Amino acid sequence: MVNYPNGRKNTYHTAAASAAGRGMELEAEINATNTRYLEEDRAVIHKKPTPVTIVHVDYPSRNAAKITEAYFKLPSTTDYNGIYRGKYIDFEAKECTSKTSFPLKSIHAHQISHLDSVLKHGAIAFVIVRFTHLGITYYVPADRMIRFVRTAERSSIPVAWFEANGFAIPYNYVRPVDYLKIVDRLYFEDKE
Amino acid sequence: MVNYPNGRKNTYHTAAASAAGRGMELEAEINATNTRYLEEDRAVIHKKPTPVTIVHVDYPSRNAAKITEAYFKLPSTTDYNGIYRGKYIDFEAKECTSKTSFPLKSIHAHQISHLDSVLKHGAIAFVIVRFTHLGITYYVPADRMIRFVRTAERSSIPVAWFEANGFAIPYNYVRPVDYLKIVDRLYFEDKE
Repeated sequence: MVNYPNGRKNTYHTAAASAAGRGMELEAEINATNTRYLEEDRAVIHKKPTPVTIVHVDYPSRNAAKITEAYFKLPSTTDYNGIYRGKYIDFEAKECTSKTSFPLKSIHAHQISHLDSVLKHGAIAFVIVRFTHLGITYYVPADRMIRFVRTAERSSIPVAWFEANGFAIPYNYVRPVDYLKIVDRLYFEDKE
Repeated sequence: MVNYPNGRKNTYHTAAASAAGRGMELEAEINATNTRYLEEDRAVIHKKPTPVTIVHVDYPSRNAAKITEAYFKLPSTTDYNGIYRGKYIDFEAKECTSKTSFPLKSIHAHQISHLDSVLKHGAIAFVIVRFTHLGITYYVPADRMIRFVRTAERSSIPVAWFEANGFAIPYNYVRPVDYLKIVDRLYFEDKE
C-alpha cells in the first residue's frame, strides 16, 4: 500500500500502480470496472482473493495477527464471479505478451472444468484475454474456449482465432474493460 | 495439514480437524457439503479464499515463492457464492457460542450491504448461523436478517427470533450442512 505524501488514499491508482509492477494492469482495470458497475448498482461482481495456504501466524500483540509464512496455491475456480440482471456471471482474465498466440498453459485444467460446470448450471461464463502488445482485449464465450482446449492439437490459440471467435471489449475512462457491453449484446440484445 | 500415520490423506477430516482447532467446524462442514454438491453435479458453490494483504514475498529459488509478511483483511463480501439451478447463490456463515443470542457485531456492515445488493439483483441470499452449544444450525433469509439489523435497538438477536424467522438446516453424514434442502423448500418447492 502506497502512502501518498498528502495523506490521500486513492484505491484505484494505488491498486493499478502496484498491479502494473507485476504485469497485472488488466486485473487493476477489471477491478476498477467492477467498482464502477457496483457504484452504478448495475452488477455485483468481485475478484476473489488470491488463494494462499497459511502456515504460520504471529500474534505480536493481542489484536494484531501477522502472517509470517504462507504460500500461493493454485486457484480451484476462476477469479471473478457475481450477479448481473439476475444471472450468475463467472469469468477468468489473462494477459498475454505474445503478438501471435495465447499459450493454453495460461489457463489451468481445473479452471476449464469449472467454467464447463457453471455453464451447465446456467451461468454466463467467459474468458477475457488481453494481448498487451496488440492493445486489444477479447471476450471469449466459455463454450468456445472449452471446445478449442479440448480438441486442440496445438498448445496455443492463434490471434486469428480470437478475431473470429471473440469480441473486442470496448474501453472507456470510467469502465476500462467494459465487458458487460458484450454480455448485453450476447444475452440481452437490447440496452447497455 | 495433518499427516496420518498410515499415509492416508483424508481431505475432509484433515480440513475438519484443522478448522476445529480454530473453532471453525461449521466452515469445514459447509466445505464438505459443497464438495458433495459438486460431486453430485447439483450446484457449484465455493468458499472464497481468506483475503490477505501481501506485503513481502521471498523467492528462495526460481520457482518457489514464500510469503513472509502478510495481514488478514476484512472481507468486502460474504464468504460463499456460486450457482444452483441457474440462480446466483450468496451467503455468509457464522458460529455462535452464546446459548441465548447472536451478537450483531459478528456480521460486518459491508457484508449486510453486500447481501442487500445481491438480493436486489435477483440472488438467493441467506445467512447460516450455528449455535454451537445448542447444536442447531439455522438458515436465515437475508432480507429478514437485514431488516432486523437495520431496525434493531439491541446489539444481538435472541435465539427465539431464529426459531421464528429461520429454518433448521438438516444434517446428514455426507452433507453435514444440507442447506440446499431449505433453498428447495423456499424457492423451488418440489424436489430435493
